[in-house]
Amino acid sequence: MTPRKLVARVLLRPGQAARLKSRDPADTLGLDSEDAARVHQAAMIDRLNDLQYRLYAENQRSVLLVLQGMDTSGKDGTIRHVMSGLDPSACQVTSFKAPSAEELDHDFLWRIHKAAPARGQIGVFNRSHYEDVLIARVRKLVPAKVWKSRYAQINAFERLLSDNGTVIVKCVLHISRREQKERLLDRLRDPRKNWKFSPRDVEERKLWPAYMEAYEDALTKCSTAHAPWHIVPADHKWVRNAVVAELLVETLEAMKLKIPRAAFDVRAIRIPD
Amino acid sequence: MTPRKLVARVLLRPGQAARLKSRDPADTLGLDSEDAARVHQAAMIDRLNDLQYRLYAENQRSVLLVLQGMDTSGKDGTIRHVMSGLDPSACQVTSFKAPSAEELDHDFLWRIHKAAPARGQIGVFNRSHYEDVLIARVRKLVPAKVWKSRYAQINAFERLLSDNGTVIVKCVLHISRREQKERLLDRLRDPRKNWKFSPRDVEERKLWPAYMEAYEDALTKCSTAHAPWHIVPADHKWVRNAVVAELLVETLEAMKLKIPRAAFDVRAIRIPD
Repeated sequence: MTPRKLVARVLLRPGQAARLKSRDPADTLGLDSEDAARVHQAAMIDRLNDLQYRLYAENQRSVLLVLQGMDTSGKDGTIRHVMSGLDPSACQVTSFKAPSAEELDHDFLWRIHKAAPARGQIGVFNRSHYEDVLIARVRKLVPAKVWKSRYAQINAFERLLSDNGTVIVKCVLHISRREQKERLLDRLRDPRKNWKFSPRDVEERKLWPAYMEAYEDALTKCSTAHAPWHIVPADHKWVRNAVVAELLVETLEAMKLKIPRAAFDVRAIRIPD
Repeated sequence: MTPRKLVARVLLRPGQAARLKSRDPADTLGLDSEDAARVHQAAMIDRLNDLQYRLYAENQRSVLLVLQGMDTSGKDGTIRHVMSGLDPSACQVTSFKAPSAEELDHDFLWRIHKAAPARGQIGVFNRSHYEDVLIARVRKLVPAKVWKSRYAQINAFERLLSDNGTVIVKCVLHISRREQKERLLDRLRDPRKNWKFSPRDVEERKLWPAYMEAYEDALTKCSTAHAPWHIVPADHKWVRNAVVAELLVETLEAMKLKIPRAAFDVRAIRIPD
C-alpha cells in the first residue's frame, strides 16, 4: 500500500458530490491489519518530524489541518495519536468551541483568521469555521440566507490563506451512526471516560440526518483545488490515524521544503572569547 | 538518583542569592552517564503523558513552564526533546520575540498575560517577561527606574496567575561562556544549522558579563514560593533534558490531578439509535 494510493482514495475531488452514504465508514482502504497500519503510521510520524523541522527552519510557509466530524468521531484522538511526537514549538492546536459574545460581535471568520498558523507552523483546527455551516444551519442559529452565503465566503477566505503560503488540508472523520452509539455508551460505562460525555451529545445525535445533509453540502461546495476535503473512514481508529498521518506527510513532502542557506557570509564571522 | 533529589539540587530557594559563578554549568548532578539519563528521561516522559491527560480532563488548573537562557543555551532543544510526545492539544508554546509596536504601546506584561495557559493546558514560554529585566536592562531599552520597578511587578503578576490555578515553574538554562562559543561555531560550520545563527548573536555575546549580572538579579529577586526559579546546568544537553523532564513530572504529580466524576446521573442517560 503506497501512501499516494491511500490519500487519493479519501480525496473528494473538487466538483465531485460528497455522497457520504456511498462511503463506508468502516472501510480499511486495503490496509491489511491494525498492526500493519501502526507500523505504517510510525514510519509516517518519523518522516513528519523531519518535515516539520524543515518547515520551521524555512519559516516562509505554513500548514493548516482542519479536522471536522460528529461527536466521538475522533478529532481529539487523531491529534493525540498523529501529532504527538511533533515539536510543540511548531505545532499549534486550536479547539473551537461555541463563540464568545465578543466573537459573535464579528463576522464568523474573525476568530478563525486570528488562529491561522504563523509561518513555519503546523496549525490544527479541532472544529473550525465549518461549524458555521453545520451547527449554525442545523440548529438554525442564523437565517438560511446567512449560512447559504458562507460557502463562497469560506472558499474566498481559504483562497486568501492559500495564496499567502498556507497549505490547507481538510479532513472530515466519517463515522457511522452505529459506531457513534457504541462510543457514547463507552463514555457512559467507563468512569474514566465520563468527563468526555455531555448530555447535550444525545440531543445532537438526534439530529444526525440533518447534520449529514449539512456535511454533504459543506464538503461538496468547499472542496477546492487550493483546500481540498478528504473523507476519512473513521470507524476504525487505526485506519483514521494512518490516513491522516500519511496525508500530512504527503502534503509536507509536496512543499519541497529546504533548510535555508545563510543570509550572511559565514566565513566573515568571528566569535570572540 | 531519585527525581526529588535532582530537582532539589537545581532549585533556587526563595531568598537565596543566585550566584551563578558558584554553579557549574557542566554539572551532571550525579547522573552517571548519558545513557542512564536518557532512560530516566524516557520514563519521565511516559509519566508526563499520563499526567497531562489528567490535567486536561480536570480542566481546572494549568501549568506554566518558563524557559530562559542565553543564546544557544538550548531553549528550543529542551522543548523539542522534553515536550515532543505530549498531546499538542494540551500544550501551547509561545516564543517571545522583540515586542511589536502594538505590544510596546502597552505595559510589558500585557502580551505575556494574553499568552497565559488556559485551564487544562501546559503552557511553555520560550523567553518571557524576564527579557524585560534582561535585554531591556543590558541594552538600556528603558531607564533604570523602569526596569528596577519590574521585579516587584513580575512577582505580583506571577502571584495572580498562581492564585488563580496556574502552577509556575521557571528554569534558566545555565551554560558556560565557553560552551556558547562552541555552539555558535557549530552553527557556523554546519550549513544545516546556519539558519539558527544571527550575526546579532555575536553582539549579544560581547555583553556576557552584563547579562550574568542581570540574570543574577532576576533570579534572586523573583524566585518565590509560588514561582520558584531553577538553575539548570545546561552544558550537557542530556542533563538539561533529564532535569526539565523530571521537574515537570514532579510539578504535575504534586498537583494530585484526578479524572473528574460525571456531573450528571450516568444511569439516567439513554442513547437513541
